[in-house]
Amino acid sequence: MNYFYFTEISNGFIRLDEDESKHLQLVLRHKPGNVIHLLNGNGLKVEGFLHATDKKGVTIKVDKTVLFPKKDFQLHVAIGPTKQMERFEWFLEKATELGIDSITPFTSTHGERDKLRMDRLEKIIRTAGKQSANPNFPTLNGLMSFQELINGSTKKNKYIAHLDQSSKGHFFDVIPKGEDVLILIGPEGDFTEKEVETAKAQGFLSVHLGENRLRTETAGIFATQCLILKNK
Amino acid sequence: MNYFYFTEISNGFIRLDEDESKHLQLVLRHKPGNVIHLLNGNGLKVEGFLHATDKKGVTIKVDKTVLFPKKDFQLHVAIGPTKQMERFEWFLEKATELGIDSITPFTSTHGERDKLRMDRLEKIIRTAGKQSANPNFPTLNGLMSFQELINGSTKKNKYIAHLDQSSKGHFFDVIPKGEDVLILIGPEGDFTEKEVETAKAQGFLSVHLGENRLRTETAGIFATQCLILKNK
Repeated sequence: MNYFYFTEISNGFIRLDEDESKHLQLVLRHKPGNVIHLLNGNGLKVEGFLHATDKKGVTIKVDKTVLFPKKDFQLHVAIGPTKQMERFEWFLEKATELGIDSITPFTSTHGERDKLRMDRLEKIIRTAGKQSANPNFPTLNGLMSFQELINGSTKKNKYIAHLDQSSKGHFFDVIPKGEDVLILIGPEGDFTEKEVETAKAQGFLSVHLGENRLRTETAGIFATQCLILKNK
Repeated sequence: MNYFYFTEISNGFIRLDEDESKHLQLVLRHKPGNVIHLLNGNGLKVEGFLHATDKKGVTIKVDKTVLFPKKDFQLHVAIGPTKQMERFEWFLEKATELGIDSITPFTSTHGERDKLRMDRLEKIIRTAGKQSANPNFPTLNGLMSFQELINGSTKKNKYIAHLDQSSKGHFFDVIPKGEDVLILIGPEGDFTEKEVETAKAQGFLSVHLGENRLRTETAGIFATQCLILKNK
């Protein structure tokens, strides 16, 4: 089943944007009267009918709406974007499919990027969200510095994953169920010792993700799945 | 730390193949006497010294060897290769990083491929294995048919993941710890009902991987990580 993305219901009708309209008309070749499934990434799934098409787009008549409320806690992965953008984009796609709530890219000493094309990344999330029928897309926060991220983290359950494995627990074992969690995943060059110490001083618990040395994007997906499995 | 791949130790020396020799000399610019780390993907990690270089390659003098025995059980993912090879290759890379033991690609009714370039796939596994410092690379079996796969599965713990979620357990909950496990992940068009019934008749237990609709390669990674976390 294909889902279309929408942002607004107005008097029982939805107007699709240009991309979604084209996909519906030219790729999937829907005709007026066809049943259409939509989601807004904000908890709402809609079933409707293709009502009318014109040169500028497509109108859907809403038949049924179902609300899938967000969890009352947030699973949050903060991650240093990779040098090869493709790898970071994979992470976004997979984390969206798996059902993460919130993603924050950050800059740090060994980070490879200080700019991100947010519109492109938002689009990847939308596509993965539709594909996986995930009613609640993750929030993608703007790029911030490691220091801003640490300073702004006032929640209880916060973790930093890094390569040195001395005397730390496995992330999956230490995280609670049903509570907000924030995990920091380092960039390709890992965190500096100083960054790890700074995070610890702010209440972050140092954790590992197993014996193998994972690439940044793999570590991000691994952490995401630990959170999803703990809260399934 | 960079690892190099080798296949044989002969009288205390290792001869690297052409690709590995070039990488060592031209990219990482090692000089005679440098410490070199190697693995063979078959449990052996080696520390040695760059002994000599010539036009045809590089010789390493072995200093220390450590054997990391394989587990005495096998975690095995069988998966329908995706239409976009890149997605299947991504699965191979990540499953190797995470530490799966065995991978079998298979053809089926809704499968998209009946040929695979095994040499290319083996290379992806080697690269990911070196990158993740995984001493035991997974075994990549040749492409087989769904029916061959089912007929050849004589082990106890075998599962089939498919999209219909009626009355099935979550894969993570039903798998045992410390035992052989085989999980079948369907192709992009999923298994047919008949294939699911055939598998069940051969003792496969039908399982799901959570609420979201995962792409084939994401389902493969998800299943891999369930196995790794259960046995960590």
